[in-house]
Amino acid sequence: MSKEILVLGHKNPDTDSICSAIAYSALKNKTGANTIPVRLGEISKETEYVLEYFNMEKPKLQTNISGESVILVDHNERTQTADGFEEAKILELVDHHRISNFHTDEPLKVRMDIVGCTSTLVFELYKEAGLTPEKNIAGLMLSAIVSDTLLFKSPTCTERDVKAAEELAVISETNLEKYGLDMLIAGTNLDDKTNEELLNMDMKVFEIDSLKLAVAQVSTVDIEKLLTKKAELEKSIDDFISKEKLDIFMFVITDILNNNSVALAAGKRADIAEKAFEQTMNNGILTLNGVVSRKKQIIPPLTKAVQN
Amino acid sequence: MSKEILVLGHKNPDTDSICSAIAYSALKNKTGANTIPVRLGEISKETEYVLEYFNMEKPKLQTNISGESVILVDHNERTQTADGFEEAKILELVDHHRISNFHTDEPLKVRMDIVGCTSTLVFELYKEAGLTPEKNIAGLMLSAIVSDTLLFKSPTCTERDVKAAEELAVISETNLEKYGLDMLIAGTNLDDKTNEELLNMDMKVFEIDSLKLAVAQVSTVDIEKLLTKKAELEKSIDDFISKEKLDIFMFVITDILNNNSVALAAGKRADIAEKAFEQTMNNGILTLNGVVSRKKQIIPPLTKAVQN
Repeated sequence: MSKEILVLGHKNPDTDSICSAIAYSALKNKTGANTIPVRLGEISKETEYVLEYFNMEKPKLQTNISGESVILVDHNERTQTADGFEEAKILELVDHHRISNFHTDEPLKVRMDIVGCTSTLVFELYKEAGLTPEKNIAGLMLSAIVSDTLLFKSPTCTERDVKAAEELAVISETNLEKYGLDMLIAGTNLDDKTNEELLNMDMKVFEIDSLKLAVAQVSTVDIEKLLTKKAELEKSIDDFISKEKLDIFMFVITDILNNNSVALAAGKRADIAEKAFEQTMNNGILTLNGVVSRKKQIIPPLTKAVQN
Repeated sequence: MSKEILVLGHKNPDTDSICSAIAYSALKNKTGANTIPVRLGEISKETEYVLEYFNMEKPKLQTNISGESVILVDHNERTQTADGFEEAKILELVDHHRISNFHTDEPLKVRMDIVGCTSTLVFELYKEAGLTPEKNIAGLMLSAIVSDTLLFKSPTCTERDVKAAEELAVISETNLEKYGLDMLIAGTNLDDKTNEELLNMDMKVFEIDSLKLAVAQVSTVDIEKLLTKKAELEKSIDDFISKEKLDIFMFVITDILNNNSVALAAGKRADIAEKAFEQTMNNGILTLNGVVSRKKQIIPPLTKAVQN
């Protein structure tokens, strides 16, 4: 038996990265490949709820991919993938982000599109192959779509995401609205998290021109409650900035019921965040009305502010 | 009417870059987009034969894409695309090469796969959309596949390329074998080319680590005849190396009937070419038995030789 191909999502895995890796690995294996899903870090409370609900194991932890043949899902940027990337063979990429800091030595299969969730593309690949996912795999893809689109309320959500979710709800015999809200709320229980864990739960590092930025995002149903820990969080953010030599750190707290966010911004170029969102920080806080999507509503204005 | 989206292949356009741009533009327009194909340079004798045979105009010349919205076909590397790339908005990419020196600020649609020809992917996109290309557009895609796969004899050719070409031959009512050979031979008439034109006909520049390489390729049915001009060609190559500050230039002459190549290699790091092909140059010439594909048989060994 040849060595297994690893299917992996990004660091600080979210529900899409875990579920798309499992679902795409299952599809590849149905078509004769020998793959296993892996994860680059601990899973979130939300993902834990999803895996338990659909009775699935979490993927094996694998943080170094040197010498491996891999399929990337839900990411492509060097700063977001596993160690040893330069010594891995990249066979495929299924993603819905910008392409940046990514290169291969040889041609590869790529499926990318401007949709809200990688699992939407994975489900479309099932359909193109004429295959129907197993019931629990369909449930995982459904969960990924609910997670990435905040139950279709994110501006990243497309008709294709909604259509895929509706079909997956039928296959997995899931009450989409009820399950979706339960799942999102399960992910907002942050009580047992240390400050470091909060910062790392869903943090991505970006390089824009010569600046190094990190943007972390947490979902909640009570922004005020989280902000009672503001002073401690700011201390942890400063420590993290020093350790990782960041120019900017944004900690985005998103209210998933009301679809608003606030952000703590710090770092020697925190002025970039003020410029990006056209406001002066109030006591270290940016108010981001209607902002829920890092990819669509946070990274593009930051990129423009860096470049102009 | 909103501004037209430009669909473009690579610099020094080959038949695939021209025909895929025309065919994909036609598909996008069938689905409601407003696109036009453009070309980044003069077309080859082979492409001229193809366009005349299927009674199509050559695309408009456009060498700068600053401020434009664009769809890239058959390439992604910065060194192979139009000027003004940094100020263009990249909407889509349809390609079959490695990803390198390519980045976008925002998510985009990407369709890439390990097939012999971009037009194979374009034809698959027609089928996914439930559409049949017009007869002459089908002829162009067929021609691109014949060109890129050297009538299915290149190691880059896959079953999907053969299947697409066979279906396109039916739609375009073309005798695949006869037309294919006529077309390839039409492209080998190099009599009226200056040395500079020969070097530039199908030349691509690559950056591998910190080295700048150019690999030009011409097709012929008579290698010996072309080599009677060897001394003049070497002079032109040296001039070109100085002008473009290249570390290596390889001029690959491919016999499309016998599927062999020879290459003139020059530049201060020409030793890399010798290392890549495990031989010492004989009077400035490398003998590349069975080599016909730059992408599959020349760039990978050069990349390995640079990196090791």
